[in-house]
Amino acid sequence: MSLWRQRPERVATKIEVGILGATAMVGQQLIALLEQHPWFQITWLAASEPSQGHRYGDLPWRLPGKVPAGLTDQKVEAPRPRDAPQLVFSALDAAAAGEMEPAFAAAGHYVVSNARNFRMDPFVPLLIPEVNAQHLDLVLIQQQRKRWRGAIVTNPNCSTIFLAIVLAALREFHVKRGVVTTMQALSGAGYPGVASADSAANVIPWIEGEEEEIEIETQKILGRFMVNSIEPASVQISAQASRVPVLHGHTEMVSLEMGERVSSEQVEEAFREFPGVARTLHLPSAPTKPIVVHLERDRPQPRLDAETGAGMLVHVGRVRKCSVLDHKFVVLGHNLIRGAAGAALLNAELLVARQLFAPVQGLP
Amino acid sequence: MSLWRQRPERVATKIEVGILGATAMVGQQLIALLEQHPWFQITWLAASEPSQGHRYGDLPWRLPGKVPAGLTDQKVEAPRPRDAPQLVFSALDAAAAGEMEPAFAAAGHYVVSNARNFRMDPFVPLLIPEVNAQHLDLVLIQQQRKRWRGAIVTNPNCSTIFLAIVLAALREFHVKRGVVTTMQALSGAGYPGVASADSAANVIPWIEGEEEEIEIETQKILGRFMVNSIEPASVQISAQASRVPVLHGHTEMVSLEMGERVSSEQVEEAFREFPGVARTLHLPSAPTKPIVVHLERDRPQPRLDAETGAGMLVHVGRVRKCSVLDHKFVVLGHNLIRGAAGAALLNAELLVARQLFAPVQGLP
Amino acid sequence: MSLWRQRPERVATKIEVGILGATAMVGQQLIALLEQHPWFQITWLAASEPSQGHRYGDLPWRLPGKVPAGLTDQKVEAPRPRDAPQLVFSALDAAAAGEMEPAFAAAGHYVVSNARNFRMDPFVPLLIPEVNAQHLDLVLIQQQRKRWRGAIVTNPNCSTIFLAIVLAALREFHVKRGVVTTMQALSGAGYPGVASADSAANVIPWIEGEEEEIEIETQKILGRFMVNSIEPASVQISAQASRVPVLHGHTEMVSLEMGERVSSEQVEEAFREFPGVARTLHLPSAPTKPIVVHLERDRPQPRLDAETGAGMLVHVGRVRKCSVLDHKFVVLGHNLIRGAAGAALLNAELLVARQLFAPVQGLP
Amino acid sequence: MSLWRQRPERVATKIEVGILGATAMVGQQLIALLEQHPWFQITWLAASEPSQGHRYGDLPWRLPGKVPAGLTDQKVEAPRPRDAPQLVFSALDAAAAGEMEPAFAAAGHYVVSNARNFRMDPFVPLLIPEVNAQHLDLVLIQQQRKRWRGAIVTNPNCSTIFLAIVLAALREFHVKRGVVTTMQALSGAGYPGVASADSAANVIPWIEGEEEEIEIETQKILGRFMVNSIEPASVQISAQASRVPVLHGHTEMVSLEMGERVSSEQVEEAFREFPGVARTLHLPSAPTKPIVVHLERDRPQPRLDAETGAGMLVHVGRVRKCSVLDHKFVVLGHNLIRGAAGAALLNAELLVARQLFAPVQGLP
Repeated sequence: MSLWRQRPERVATKIEVGILGATAMVGQQLIALLEQHPWFQITWLAASEPSQGHRYGDLPWRLPGKVPAGLTDQKVEAPRPRDAPQLVFSALDAAAAGEMEPAFAAAGHYVVSNARNFRMDPFVPLLIPEVNAQHLDLVLIQQQRKRWRGAIVTNPNCSTIFLAIVLAALREFHVKRGVVTTMQALSGAGYPGVASADSAANVIPWIEGEEEEIEIETQKILGRFMVNSIEPASVQISAQASRVPVLHGHTEMVSLEMGERVSSEQVEEAFREFPGVARTLHLPSAPTKPIVVHLERDRPQPRLDAETGAGMLVHVGRVRKCSVLDHKFVVLGHNLIRGAAGAALLNAELLVARQLFAPVQGLP
Repeated sequence: MSLWRQRPERVATKIEVGILGATAMVGQQLIALLEQHPWFQITWLAASEPSQGHRYGDLPWRLPGKVPAGLTDQKVEAPRPRDAPQLVFSALDAAAAGEMEPAFAAAGHYVVSNARNFRMDPFVPLLIPEVNAQHLDLVLIQQQRKRWRGAIVTNPNCSTIFLAIVLAALREFHVKRGVVTTMQALSGAGYPGVASADSAANVIPWIEGEEEEIEIETQKILGRFMVNSIEPASVQISAQASRVPVLHGHTEMVSLEMGERVSSEQVEEAFREFPGVARTLHLPSAPTKPIVVHLERDRPQPRLDAETGAGMLVHVGRVRKCSVLDHKFVVLGHNLIRGAAGAALLNAELLVARQLFAPVQGLP
Repeated sequence: MSLWRQRPERVATKIEVGILGATAMVGQQLIALLEQHPWFQITWLAASEPSQGHRYGDLPWRLPGKVPAGLTDQKVEAPRPRDAPQLVFSALDAAAAGEMEPAFAAAGHYVVSNARNFRMDPFVPLLIPEVNAQHLDLVLIQQQRKRWRGAIVTNPNCSTIFLAIVLAALREFHVKRGVVTTMQALSGAGYPGVASADSAANVIPWIEGEEEEIEIETQKILGRFMVNSIEPASVQISAQASRVPVLHGHTEMVSLEMGERVSSEQVEEAFREFPGVARTLHLPSAPTKPIVVHLERDRPQPRLDAETGAGMLVHVGRVRKCSVLDHKFVVLGHNLIRGAAGAALLNAELLVARQLFAPVQGLP
Repeated sequence: MSLWRQRPERVATKIEVGILGATAMVGQQLIALLEQHPWFQITWLAASEPSQGHRYGDLPWRLPGKVPAGLTDQKVEAPRPRDAPQLVFSALDAAAAGEMEPAFAAAGHYVVSNARNFRMDPFVPLLIPEVNAQHLDLVLIQQQRKRWRGAIVTNPNCSTIFLAIVLAALREFHVKRGVVTTMQALSGAGYPGVASADSAANVIPWIEGEEEEIEIETQKILGRFMVNSIEPASVQISAQASRVPVLHGHTEMVSLEMGERVSSEQVEEAFREFPGVARTLHLPSAPTKPIVVHLERDRPQPRLDAETGAGMLVHVGRVRKCSVLDHKFVVLGHNLIRGAAGAALLNAELLVARQLFAPVQGLP
């Protein structure tokens, strides 16, 4: 049985959602994105012990401006399933997510997670709606196998998302291998993240776990859903990750070897024509066209491009021949939005659009 | 007839040298490096018209501290051959070097240049003493063909130098191809160089001409001297260059495909054992061991490593298997020193050590 | 005769405006602010020779995103009065503004200028609508004395604007003297502005002309309009200006001596209650409340606060007793918007609201 | 009885010293400064529990280059008095110093501390050798009152040191009041210190406790030693502190009111002539002239000037009239060296030079 039934009915009243990790950087970005959301309304904020019991407006807010007005007086709760709405975003760090997310799923919650813990679990979908929306069906298998009334769905690592979208756009050219160097922004490390004493006017040529995640998650995302599991794609990526003193926006230098002989123009064209899901799935946060191709010789740049299109776009530039592999180009995306909070939000929208999740009265 | 005769005699009195482009960033770095040099003494400074006639100490000095005491009162001259000493360093920009350097060489001067103009001239050596000191013999051909009494010798582009040294260390493994991403420091763009409005908290994924220079210069540097020309090496590099908000030190992410199956330990060992020329050629600015291998997982870093070893070292770290090509690692060097002013200085020392250049009384 | 007659009628069709210095940083910011403006529509772009004849969309755009769609195909013109609409914004640099702005005013244009050249001219109003809108009457004197059919109106230096608004809010306390240190953002220096080689990870404790402008412009802005001239206010400011590696937002540390004994609470209250002109003059770009008081101990901060309120707010924080003068606090404003392009825009809106400027058919 | 007896004899063998807080930023800077010290030799390193038992070379080293060779194999100890040499530098943070420093002093150790805890203790000298070396006599009172066999001596807060040296140079002009704004470097916050997410491309206009320390410590440092206590100086400072994205070097904008009418030239002259203690007290780390006056209009700058003179200089520039108080100027010093580790080192040298401390066999 597929979830692919029909477009969602109009949502009459907003769906209540909660945030696990409401004081984390990604949690705050989620809160900012949800402020005007047409479907969702935050009714529950949870965080670790030091923040519990405080008004959310009294806790440090690390994004520009102030806490959204409606949440200033919201009390921060302990992360216990019984108090939370059925749909919960998780911006937990890996140390907390490992135990907490399954507990919520077991208790009947749908956990839309940005944490890394269950991304590679064979029964947890690793979703980018434009790339592998059909992987969402894995949720049904997940519920059977794990005996959960709820579920966990995840989005990939930030750098992986931008790369996977680009690779999906080139699917017809049968990309075989790729070499990627990332130059990742400070905000990708969360808060407090990287010490300024380490990062100021410096490059740190290593990010814990990042390269492995890029290499392995890409294969799962681009893999095929087969009966009840994902068969990983064979594309082989070799990544080198670095941290650079940029605020938001991960830049990636990509060289690809393809199974087909194509021109740079065809590559650009494939990027430009890569379809969004805004029209087909009607996800309100999805861009009409997920990939923007820049023609200036020195773009995309994180400071000038990452925030355009509400931070939900993948930017590509300098598409040209590679003398070692076949083509090379620059990729850029907003790590906090398209690469994390916006990615989770899109996955939640997909859950609703596909009617997998339908808010139930009286849960749990 | 080879220049490779014997070690240089002790230099009794210092050799007089001049600086073309004395107000440029690389010119200033040269002046700083020459302040205590055992062989050379600056007696002539030249720059473009606005600076001519001024005391050097009255012009802007952009390096830490102040103008070396001995040069404060030195008058800045017009760049005319007749006034200059026989040995001249050129820190000219490409717009000026094209006409000026040949004029000096024709007039009997030995021009040790950091400019890009003649690097790929078939009769001009593109030198890194540790890598291709024997290319210096090209000077004799140059003098015949160009009918110059003097000569031009050049050092490579800054990013190329670090890469070429690393590739030279791996010669026995027959490197066939490589993919390189550079993250280059601000000072590599000279002065005023990149506008802060462009570079602050940003990555600029393009540097004019840089990628082509890395790809083509590498082949010449690693090429073989054959009778009277350089046969380019066949190694194929594909480069992506970017500017990052770092003060000094270019970082490069390198992936290489080799003709031999070797382990990462063998690669590291080859780096560590790559011989310097300090002992064989007795160049005072040459490091004993040109390559330093870092074992920490997050090094080398430009701010912590570029200035060690007087800025003359090439740093390598994170040597490991590449799942697409064979091995990958991080390379770092100080762009203003090992990558420019120190590179030229080393070439001038080589000229003297090889007795190609012997200061002549009464020149020109 | 006063200009203070009545609220403006509804503007039926938009007023055509031109931009002098359309490729400058402030010119581009003006273009961005005008994209959706309810009263004004850009129909003319002028810049210096290298840009003339080009499509505006083909020239470098230095703000985030791209050139507003409607201007992509707009040809850049030479800055000649006869082609321009009657209302012209000037983002010219001082070298060009000195001759060009009077030429436009003489030819019947109303020049709303951000340049420094005529700010201290006794017949040119130096305007901040919330502070000294009545100084606009000086335009009538200006036209008589200079025999111009048009006029020049100016906005103050960016750092001065924020300080003058704060001082205006404290008028009733009779501020006598003040000591100010500014920490100014990179974008305040225009493009290319400060070299990254100078500004990266550095403080430059000097900005040409800045301290004098702050000290003298403040007195004119706060001065009284007397018959046909401005009598400068007696408030004495001593400024120290510096450039810090921040993108947008000038921070100022202010200590003030007052003629009245007041508490810090009264000072905060005066800031909070300082009235805007949005309701009285109905200027569309004017904030309802121009000053925001922050209560967190570490705010305002340029990166978190400068862009809120569309960049038109003045932020104050840490109001407390000063042990040398009377009170001290931190001030912050967006230098490109409230301090330059937005300031000019507000002045143009004031011209229209006060019916001083009424677009005339067939000009000039 | 005064300590001011005679110049120290030549130190035959080096004095053994220990470092409390050896992994802190200031501890590491101390270790770097002591590497070639003529009098002192590190024989003991202590740090908090996670580092204990490790080879020092295996712990993170945050300064450029690597751990000094002689300390690579040194085991990090628990901070217990009985194992430590008699002379101990403390780079402890305030949380640890409060209990630990008195314990060491009671056990007979001389603790030369950079921590803030005991700076304002009436029996603990707050020393800058060039300013108030005679305050060292307070140690004898301290030992009586506290019944300690050892002692604690402290250096001031980093920003205070530069200001106090400057004020001491102007003593004859009877400075009455001053307004100071500091722009402090990231390394002043220790490690990890400020999160890059907070500090990158930003100004944080607040540093915990900093303003109060500047205001009150200055009075103690410049105070007079009277029988058995320090009578605070009456000079009144009002400080505003901020954090800026600079690596090393605190910049301060100072305006002073003086009791004497003097010219700016006299102020500059007083700075230039302010005597060091290198010749009188023969402290090896003391600069001959502690204050450097810069005449360029845009200096001193942290990146260009802080590290000159081994980081032990105070830089002054832009000395000019202030229209509110009397004179204003820019001050700069290296916060980690002259402002912390070098300040403590100088104090230890003073202890030895004054023969207050003489290493005793068999302690404790």
